[in-house]
Amino acid sequence: AAPGRASVSAVLPAGGCGERLGGATPKQFCAVQGRPLVSYAVRAMERISWISDIIVVVSPENIETMKTIIEKYGHKRVTVVEGGITRHRSIFNGLKVFGENEFSSHLLQKPEVVIIHDAVRPFVEEDIISKVVMAAKEHGAAGAIRPLVSTVIASAPDGCLDHSLERARYRASEMPQAFLFDIIYEAYQQCTDYDLDYGTECLHLALKYCKTNAKLVEGTADLWKVTYKRDLYAAESIIKENLSQQVCVITNVKETLAQVGFLLPESLKSQIKVEAISISLSKNDSCLQNIISGQCYNYVCVNEKRCALQEIQELVDMLEKSNIPLLCPVVLILVYLDISENNSFSIGMEDLTTIKKFARETKKKNILVYGLLIQYK
Amino acid sequence: AAPGRASVSAVLPAGGCGERLGGATPKQFCAVQGRPLVSYAVRAMERISWISDIIVVVSPENIETMKTIIEKYGHKRVTVVEGGITRHRSIFNGLKVFGENEFSSHLLQKPEVVIIHDAVRPFVEEDIISKVVMAAKEHGAAGAIRPLVSTVIASAPDGCLDHSLERARYRASEMPQAFLFDIIYEAYQQCTDYDLDYGTECLHLALKYCKTNAKLVEGTADLWKVTYKRDLYAAESIIKENLSQQVCVITNVKETLAQVGFLLPESLKSQIKVEAISISLSKNDSCLQNIISGQCYNYVCVNEKRCALQEIQELVDMLEKSNIPLLCPVVLILVYLDISENNSFSIGMEDLTTIKKFARETKKKNILVYGLLIQYK
Repeated sequence: AAPGRASVSAVLPAGGCGERLGGATPKQFCAVQGRPLVSYAVRAMERISWISDIIVVVSPENIETMKTIIEKYGHKRVTVVEGGITRHRSIFNGLKVFGENEFSSHLLQKPEVVIIHDAVRPFVEEDIISKVVMAAKEHGAAGAIRPLVSTVIASAPDGCLDHSLERARYRASEMPQAFLFDIIYEAYQQCTDYDLDYGTECLHLALKYCKTNAKLVEGTADLWKVTYKRDLYAAESIIKENLSQQVCVITNVKETLAQVGFLLPESLKSQIKVEAISISLSKNDSCLQNIISGQCYNYVCVNEKRCALQEIQELVDMLEKSNIPLLCPVVLILVYLDISENNSFSIGMEDLTTIKKFARETKKKNILVYGLLIQYK
Repeated sequence: AAPGRASVSAVLPAGGCGERLGGATPKQFCAVQGRPLVSYAVRAMERISWISDIIVVVSPENIETMKTIIEKYGHKRVTVVEGGITRHRSIFNGLKVFGENEFSSHLLQKPEVVIIHDAVRPFVEEDIISKVVMAAKEHGAAGAIRPLVSTVIASAPDGCLDHSLERARYRASEMPQAFLFDIIYEAYQQCTDYDLDYGTECLHLALKYCKTNAKLVEGTADLWKVTYKRDLYAAESIIKENLSQQVCVITNVKETLAQVGFLLPESLKSQIKVEAISISLSKNDSCLQNIISGQCYNYVCVNEKRCALQEIQELVDMLEKSNIPLLCPVVLILVYLDISENNSFSIGMEDLTTIKKFARETKKKNILVYGLLIQYK
């Protein structure tokens, strides 16, 4: 549920030109593991069910690119808006979609709280977004902060040190930030052209024009912003690591199996992130749906019936529909437990042929199916 | 030559415990492409011929580790010193090696200028070090700076925003920094226990205790500091990229060959960093020596004689002695140009056997030799 039951939407400015990156492609459109960075940031918002609308603000020349990305990666609840020539002007354009009648062609319901988050911060977690939204509901404005990595200094006009700031007293202002919609919209309407052209800090506008002192929320290290080329390298490695370090264990309802389904995740937990669910695959489970759309690439299904391929087919369909296998291969390990008293050490050739044929078909969809038979007394 | 003909030495504090990294190993000892980060930073100093001594300050428990690293990677001009419990105390200990008689067992010549650089900034280039040293010689103190990536804010005691700093007026203070030795040593001798325990900024001490306003020098993006795990990922990728994107083309002196040796680098230059030298390999060339110790992993030798293996053997010996192949395979492509009038399309079996045997031997040393015969009229 939405924090404090507020209606919440998000604005993602993605109009930067990425001059610090040193490449032709703005960083938000750079491919990381084959997928544009902005798509990860959109995904991070989209998987939070209580965020109603996601406004992505891009420069005019990238509107078509952004629409293609939304189509390709199956993003939902996203509206693409044309940005301005500065960051503040882009964010303002994003907010206008909720606030002004002249934009009535795509007027969306005005939210109580609006989140502002960068398109180049792909690793934001629901926890910090939720904290910032709750703080904004209470204080009118809130933003994530992080300790300073370097000492900050002021230079004199002659290019020499004027003074250095005491590091502990200051913080880096990061994203996400959140605001009561009426406060930040009022601030943008009040602010000067100078603010719109040279400012960068939304919290500052809320303070200056609406006398709202934002609540500062300590964020985690994963809030960092992709700024330089080295950050793209880091993002790539983190995404690779995440893909390999999460597994979803699905067990059928039978008691004996449920126990295996319990012991397996327990023993894996010390090494990787494990999601364990106990369901019959034939039910369209929302928990499983969430795990899939949270970009889990590894699945273990513990099953009793040797070749319950119909149920597995349903899982494969869900995976395919999610577009997850577009990016990387999904691994699906089918564990068949033979718990019958008289298990004979034999698996019918017919079963083997069936599962091999099935695996060959799913491989074309970039889903790699492996079968494992365990005899168990 | 040393900038401004000053005598220059360097102190590298490497005593941090890396708590922001989230691992057991302090980040400066984390392996990046199989080699500890600190070794890259030492290397960055060491390859600058005008830096006399390099003092690496490590915590007592890591002294042996550091000595092993120096041995393994063949570092020269390095003295390991025991650090204190804070960054400032460690730097002070490093400076004392030059300044105090009680440390007479390893008293080194006091330099005119001392560089202070972090062990966790492996990518520093000679150009910025030289600029900082020259500025220090003129102003007494100097340090590299970078634009702020995030807005810096001050929080009020209630955890709300007090004010945000105008981003353009402030800079991040980075490393390297450099000082007239007498100034920074005096500053450390004067400063309080509070400074030593809670301060982090050397430029601040020079200002406070010696009234020296450091000259600020705009640095490049590669001055960044490895702070978080993501930075280790980035460092790994950058080092990998550097390894693959530099090639040294060596040509023998003959005119026709020299032309090839000129055309090849020219055509490669648009894609990778090329060092081209025209020497007879049998001379122990200091230019080649510098390229090798600058960690170039790819070599193309353009030669006339088909199997001048003795000269190639000398190059292989130089590479082996440099310890470069310890980290990654070195690739050595031998191009034999047959420019004789009556070149017959044949390479003697004997030649083939000789070069194959040679390549098999060098492969054991992690140097991969390839031969290429080009007939040319």
